[in-house]
Amino acid sequence: MNFEEMLEYLEKLHKERNVRKLKAFLNEINPADIAQLLEEVGDERTRVFLFRMLTKENAAETFVEFDGDTQENLIRAFSDTELKEVLDEIYIDDVADIIEEMPATIVKRILRNTDPETREAINSILKYPEDSAGSIMTPEFVDLKKDMTVEDAFKRIRRTGVDKETIYTCYVTDASRHLIGVTTVKELLLSDYDDIIEDLMETNVISINTLDDRETASHMLSKYDFLALPVVDTESRLVGIITVDDAIDVIQEENTEDIQKMAAITPTDTPYLKTSVIESWKKRIPWLMLLMISATLTSQILTTFEDRLLQAYVLTAFIPMLTDTGGNSGGQSSATVIRALSLNEVGIKDIFKVIWKEFRIGTVSGISLGIVCFIKLMIFDRIILGNGAITVAVALVICLTIFVETICAKIIGSTLPIIAKRMGLDPAVLANPFISTISDVISLLIYIGFAILILNI
Amino acid sequence: MNFEEMLEYLEKLHKERNVRKLKAFLNEINPADIAQLLEEVGDERTRVFLFRMLTKENAAETFVEFDGDTQENLIRAFSDTELKEVLDEIYIDDVADIIEEMPATIVKRILRNTDPETREAINSILKYPEDSAGSIMTPEFVDLKKDMTVEDAFKRIRRTGVDKETIYTCYVTDASRHLIGVTTVKELLLSDYDDIIEDLMETNVISINTLDDRETASHMLSKYDFLALPVVDTESRLVGIITVDDAIDVIQEENTEDIQKMAAITPTDTPYLKTSVIESWKKRIPWLMLLMISATLTSQILTTFEDRLLQAYVLTAFIPMLTDTGGNSGGQSSATVIRALSLNEVGIKDIFKVIWKEFRIGTVSGISLGIVCFIKLMIFDRIILGNGAITVAVALVICLTIFVETICAKIIGSTLPIIAKRMGLDPAVLANPFISTISDVISLLIYIGFAILILNI
Repeated sequence: MNFEEMLEYLEKLHKERNVRKLKAFLNEINPADIAQLLEEVGDERTRVFLFRMLTKENAAETFVEFDGDTQENLIRAFSDTELKEVLDEIYIDDVADIIEEMPATIVKRILRNTDPETREAINSILKYPEDSAGSIMTPEFVDLKKDMTVEDAFKRIRRTGVDKETIYTCYVTDASRHLIGVTTVKELLLSDYDDIIEDLMETNVISINTLDDRETASHMLSKYDFLALPVVDTESRLVGIITVDDAIDVIQEENTEDIQKMAAITPTDTPYLKTSVIESWKKRIPWLMLLMISATLTSQILTTFEDRLLQAYVLTAFIPMLTDTGGNSGGQSSATVIRALSLNEVGIKDIFKVIWKEFRIGTVSGISLGIVCFIKLMIFDRIILGNGAITVAVALVICLTIFVETICAKIIGSTLPIIAKRMGLDPAVLANPFISTISDVISLLIYIGFAILILNI
Repeated sequence: MNFEEMLEYLEKLHKERNVRKLKAFLNEINPADIAQLLEEVGDERTRVFLFRMLTKENAAETFVEFDGDTQENLIRAFSDTELKEVLDEIYIDDVADIIEEMPATIVKRILRNTDPETREAINSILKYPEDSAGSIMTPEFVDLKKDMTVEDAFKRIRRTGVDKETIYTCYVTDASRHLIGVTTVKELLLSDYDDIIEDLMETNVISINTLDDRETASHMLSKYDFLALPVVDTESRLVGIITVDDAIDVIQEENTEDIQKMAAITPTDTPYLKTSVIESWKKRIPWLMLLMISATLTSQILTTFEDRLLQAYVLTAFIPMLTDTGGNSGGQSSATVIRALSLNEVGIKDIFKVIWKEFRIGTVSGISLGIVCFIKLMIFDRIILGNGAITVAVALVICLTIFVETICAKIIGSTLPIIAKRMGLDPAVLANPFISTISDVISLLIYIGFAILILNI
């Protein structure tokens, strides 16, 4: 059954009030799908009605998949007992995520319905800065001691594993909770029951600090193909782990943010259709405003050279084409370098390599564009359309501008993100939108320069 | 030790020719780091020399982390025995990946040095279309039978698990290899030894078809928080699995591709610094050329209305600002919608919701921009700079253009990607670059229209 069929079937069962079949159907499918179905299903009351049909475990797993609004509404509909039941089954890092999105009254209710130990764990996650590794970790992991046998380890996993987000990577800690080794259930399964953990654990443990960036954590999980990454505090004590599913979410969020920034939008992680018009407007208008105002620099330039440009109106007609070409050239370079920076393929130290490379790409691109444009102007505009104003000299001004502006735009477009990163600013914010304004100004100055030089205007 | 320190230490040991310490050091760190270190280390011969110090397992795990060029050079340096040793340890999906990048002579050598069974498995992966789920799956998974006990299952895992990419998700198949259930090692560990697999397996199995898009597979792994996704053929027989680490790679590649397309670059998965100048030029120039040629439409418009525009030169000076503002407005919308489409937050069916939403965002944005621009023109340009050419009527023409073009650009920018998707085209390709050309043309026509209407030019 695809999603539409599931939705139809659910609505049919609901209309028939077929409680038995509803229960069976909902509890059989994956919680991620249940959540999506219940979010599609019309009104609040139906959603609560259907949610109550879920088994304890499914209810919890479904709950974490809902967006903040739905979670808030459900919590309001819950009795304290229901809330406690759901909370007991949710992993601590997910409870912390939920709390971050809720208004104060709901937060109080949540904390009142969790046991003191959990409450403390939640608070310790919440105190880490946003976007830090600590803020996305979970304190629920399997820890072993180095003198345990494999059999002891399995006993421990069997006893404590049910509540852990992942049991497959096991961490070996000493008496003061320092991380001294790591092993996997695969390793344990392939070893003998009386092997000692110390002999099979990997001692060169790769970990991250609680205060490091969550993006770094995700990159490490992806680079090393880990299922979980251990998080240690400033005294190297193991305090939590970050699981691969959370890393994927972070990667997707960071990618969305980069794309938004490159398109001159203040990042938001609310899905498009759930963002209100005013909310979208607030994310977009400051940049549009800033870019509009900075673009008026171009009108100052054109006004300043008004007398000269009026002597050769034909030049004016090519301004949008020239600024577009410069903007596109620069945009290609800035997007490429921003992406390379965020994938760690390029670092600040590579700036001269990048400039040299873009200079060469800019040169061959500029030559190709210039030649094609010259031919187009001479054959299409002058001969076919009979536009006598386009003399060889005019075409030369236009094409030389294309050549030089392409090189300039590529160099600026590629170095600006690196300089931004060097200054501790966000490469993506400074990049695409501003590149086009900067390249507009430069293109116009080059254009007018060549016009004065060649056409003596 | 961070990466720079590791590199320094490695170079020191190499200079001292301290083979014992080199071996110890290299085999202690993670293969992903070894690969990065060896790629940094200068010449070919040193790399081969250092690579030969790795244990069999580390050698294989390091080998798959290298880029294609390094892999090719190493294979050329290998004896057949060495090549066979490395290949034996590499997962089949990774061998298939390597083969796809190699020239024919190397492919022949690789296939000659794999056993017939592996060769067949590799060939079956290679026959799936690029970007399909089949092309990134591995045929090495743990399969169980429904009548096995948990003890039987563990025996089977212990016996066959060492060669499997993941053992944590186990698939239950019937006699004709149909996928009938799924369970996890966690579930097995938490069950009794004499429990029957059939009783604890999940029968509502989520799987993907070999021919489905690999991007869909990655989204499913991310949505359901799976460690592996089963891949079935057209007859519902289990043929392989896709593991979460490969899904992350696909997600990152697809994101890079989207960003490249949005910046008018033909996608490539070669890292920036490893792409040659000519290679980069080839990926960028077709789009620059196409956009330059299509932008000449703006010069046709400006030439057509030359006589009218010459009567009010002041209008010309604002053309770059107006086209930029339209382009930025449209770019925001297209980037937002393209991203929402690729995250499946928005579908083709939502087109009218999207238009209605962007119409409203465009209206409030257009009003805000128009008012600010009007004030700026009247106070800054007219009063402070004393530009008498900017009359109230001229300012009105400019600001009304901003208002209308913003709405148009937002609607076009947001619907074009959806229409592209509906037509089976790539939303990202059609989007950003073309939006700016289209919005340029529309902005100029609106501008000239208002000028004729209000200024009677």
